[in-house]
Amino acid sequence: MKSAIEELESKGRAAKAAAHRLANLSTDIKNKALQNISRLLITNKGEILAANKIDYQEAEASGMSAAMLDRLMLDESRLEAMAQDMLTIAALPDPVGEIFEMRTQPNGLQIGKKRVPLGVIGAIYESRPNVTVDISALCLKSGNAVILRGGKEAVRSSGALTGVVREAAVSAGIPDGAVQFLENTDRSLVDHMLKMSHVIDLIIPRGGAGLIKSVTENARMPVVSGGIGVCHTFVDASADVDQAVAIAYNAKVQRPTVCNALDTLLVHSRIAGRFLPMVAAEWAKAGVEIHGDKSVIGILETQSGLNLVPATEEDWGKEFLSLVAAIKVVNSLDEALEHIERYGSGHSEAILTEGYQAAMRFVNEVDAACVYVNASTRFTDGSQFGLGAEVGISTQKMHARGPLGLKELTTYKWIIFGSGQVRS
Amino acid sequence: MKSAIEELESKGRAAKAAAHRLANLSTDIKNKALQNISRLLITNKGEILAANKIDYQEAEASGMSAAMLDRLMLDESRLEAMAQDMLTIAALPDPVGEIFEMRTQPNGLQIGKKRVPLGVIGAIYESRPNVTVDISALCLKSGNAVILRGGKEAVRSSGALTGVVREAAVSAGIPDGAVQFLENTDRSLVDHMLKMSHVIDLIIPRGGAGLIKSVTENARMPVVSGGIGVCHTFVDASADVDQAVAIAYNAKVQRPTVCNALDTLLVHSRIAGRFLPMVAAEWAKAGVEIHGDKSVIGILETQSGLNLVPATEEDWGKEFLSLVAAIKVVNSLDEALEHIERYGSGHSEAILTEGYQAAMRFVNEVDAACVYVNASTRFTDGSQFGLGAEVGISTQKMHARGPLGLKELTTYKWIIFGSGQVRS
Repeated sequence: MKSAIEELESKGRAAKAAAHRLANLSTDIKNKALQNISRLLITNKGEILAANKIDYQEAEASGMSAAMLDRLMLDESRLEAMAQDMLTIAALPDPVGEIFEMRTQPNGLQIGKKRVPLGVIGAIYESRPNVTVDISALCLKSGNAVILRGGKEAVRSSGALTGVVREAAVSAGIPDGAVQFLENTDRSLVDHMLKMSHVIDLIIPRGGAGLIKSVTENARMPVVSGGIGVCHTFVDASADVDQAVAIAYNAKVQRPTVCNALDTLLVHSRIAGRFLPMVAAEWAKAGVEIHGDKSVIGILETQSGLNLVPATEEDWGKEFLSLVAAIKVVNSLDEALEHIERYGSGHSEAILTEGYQAAMRFVNEVDAACVYVNASTRFTDGSQFGLGAEVGISTQKMHARGPLGLKELTTYKWIIFGSGQVRS
Repeated sequence: MKSAIEELESKGRAAKAAAHRLANLSTDIKNKALQNISRLLITNKGEILAANKIDYQEAEASGMSAAMLDRLMLDESRLEAMAQDMLTIAALPDPVGEIFEMRTQPNGLQIGKKRVPLGVIGAIYESRPNVTVDISALCLKSGNAVILRGGKEAVRSSGALTGVVREAAVSAGIPDGAVQFLENTDRSLVDHMLKMSHVIDLIIPRGGAGLIKSVTENARMPVVSGGIGVCHTFVDASADVDQAVAIAYNAKVQRPTVCNALDTLLVHSRIAGRFLPMVAAEWAKAGVEIHGDKSVIGILETQSGLNLVPATEEDWGKEFLSLVAAIKVVNSLDEALEHIERYGSGHSEAILTEGYQAAMRFVNEVDAACVYVNASTRFTDGSQFGLGAEVGISTQKMHARGPLGLKELTTYKWIIFGSGQVRS
């Protein structure tokens, strides 16, 4: 292990040296790098897909689930989508160098803030190889170096993609060393990476709850974590029933395996009798299993074709990541707010209502990264929010909340232009 | 200890409940609370000064240093200054509730950010009782509840001040519980406080390096730390010599015990022969001890009246907090930048120059919270920067950098107003 750790430290030094130069690179050079990545993803597709095929076959042979295999798999259309994403990020404004809140103090000092990169980002992720490209691109555009540690199952795919990214970056004039990749997926190297606070300014864990917990507990540098979404949608007494059915259907069914999908539906008792049979019938078509409280069971038990079981205490506050939803009937907006405060994970929460006061109270009082009125929580996403892409979704309150794009990979420094001022 | 920990947890629950209501209080009520604090600091001065007198006498008897005793001491003029500060904070704009970056997406979703309080702030500080009032006021105005744990030496003073703050706040309509104070200064309660991530959203340690290190290493919630300032001033070859002497004098002498005072002077070799004898003569009048490198010794050894010793490796990167300064002669801006990168603490760094390119390179390339051209680093301060006051000075890059005022005690949530949108 000693030499592997030395190699990691050496990658860290290279990343730090590159970060120093990256911080003051022109937007033109950074955009050129992204355009090069876009092009090389297509021209090198043979090599990338061949590497991915080996990863895929090994993963399949080792018994990986179909859902995980789908995350791992690359094909031409996925590469083309990645190539297009690079151009989208290139077209976004460069956050670095923005000067803001500049003002002249009474003593003549000109004081303001200048937006600067964080430095070196560490990314620890699982089996989706596209994360390699997304995070590299967002880091480069925001002037940060990056050290990537992807999942073992995708190591060949991620290695091939990193090769493309590095070649594209260097040929555009990005300093060599800006994108580092750990080919060695030994677990102890992750442990060491989490101690490298002398090099890494921010760690982003992207994956399941176990990975996030382990990184958060062990990292010696700041971590932006999240992704765990226990998402509630509250159907208020005054909701438009048809719209509410469509939104609840979309939030649960459109892509049930992701963090912004609906977990618990809270339904006002005055609308439950009308709304529940309708949503249950729609959900039944998609195979959704309903874990309902007593009131829900009372309303739905005679309806045929449902997959309906009584809810237990464990269902509240659970992230299902599958076609399962909990439903609870509440008697007031206050009861819904209390439930969300108690069981929510601070990710995405929605109210469906035609009542102005209820909408405003919900928006003002719910403490979560994203609070919706009359829309599906599935929109919590960097692209959907107009950030181009995201390195993750933060459910913490410090630094940045919700989808993390280019600006969230920066900080600022105060800059002060004087003319001989001293303090009295 | 069990009941003391239960009491602390109970204070935590009370703070959290109060924070929930504080988050949506009107600016009028919060300003009224600050005006009440201002008034009560004066009308209750007898009680406050009596409590402080007991703290002071006990500290004096226990052998506390004169500098620490001065920090502990309250008198009428200090109370009046604190009362004035409350009115200054009341007059600042309320950051909470600001809606920003609001835009309409192509699908009609209106997406933006709303500035909200962090929740519950924990403050762990040492012997300066005014910190009790400053931090309470900034927390209240920014809509946060606060749990205060001051130093044992100032417990009566801080207790009396907290009493005033609570009375003032509650009579203005702030929920009771918003300001919590730990009368019990047992060390193990601090350990427990650092574990209360279920209640405390942010811990601010304010004090010496030992306190900051211990809090940073043990806290289970985010910490905004800093205050440790290894501050360099680089006198470039083209500096205005008289101005440079005045700035170096101010930065070292005006208040040597604080974090933004000068620690190391870097002097370009082409100006050293003229500049060093002048600054050394001025510093000598104030009793500054100079730790110089070989070149500095060579230039200054024949000058009479100086307190001059050879610098050792330990002098570089040292925060002196006293009338001691290290001086090093460098041959270029690059050498100065490398020294600062290696030894700086990311607090405040200055260049004194008449060269445009040197000024711009220094501002662009130095990675620190505050980067100055032609001014004293002593300006790094919330009041001086126009923030009214500060809860501390951050030398970290995440969330906020430099002096922390009202805005830095907030976060944002995304708010999304829809009209039935679902994701396709």
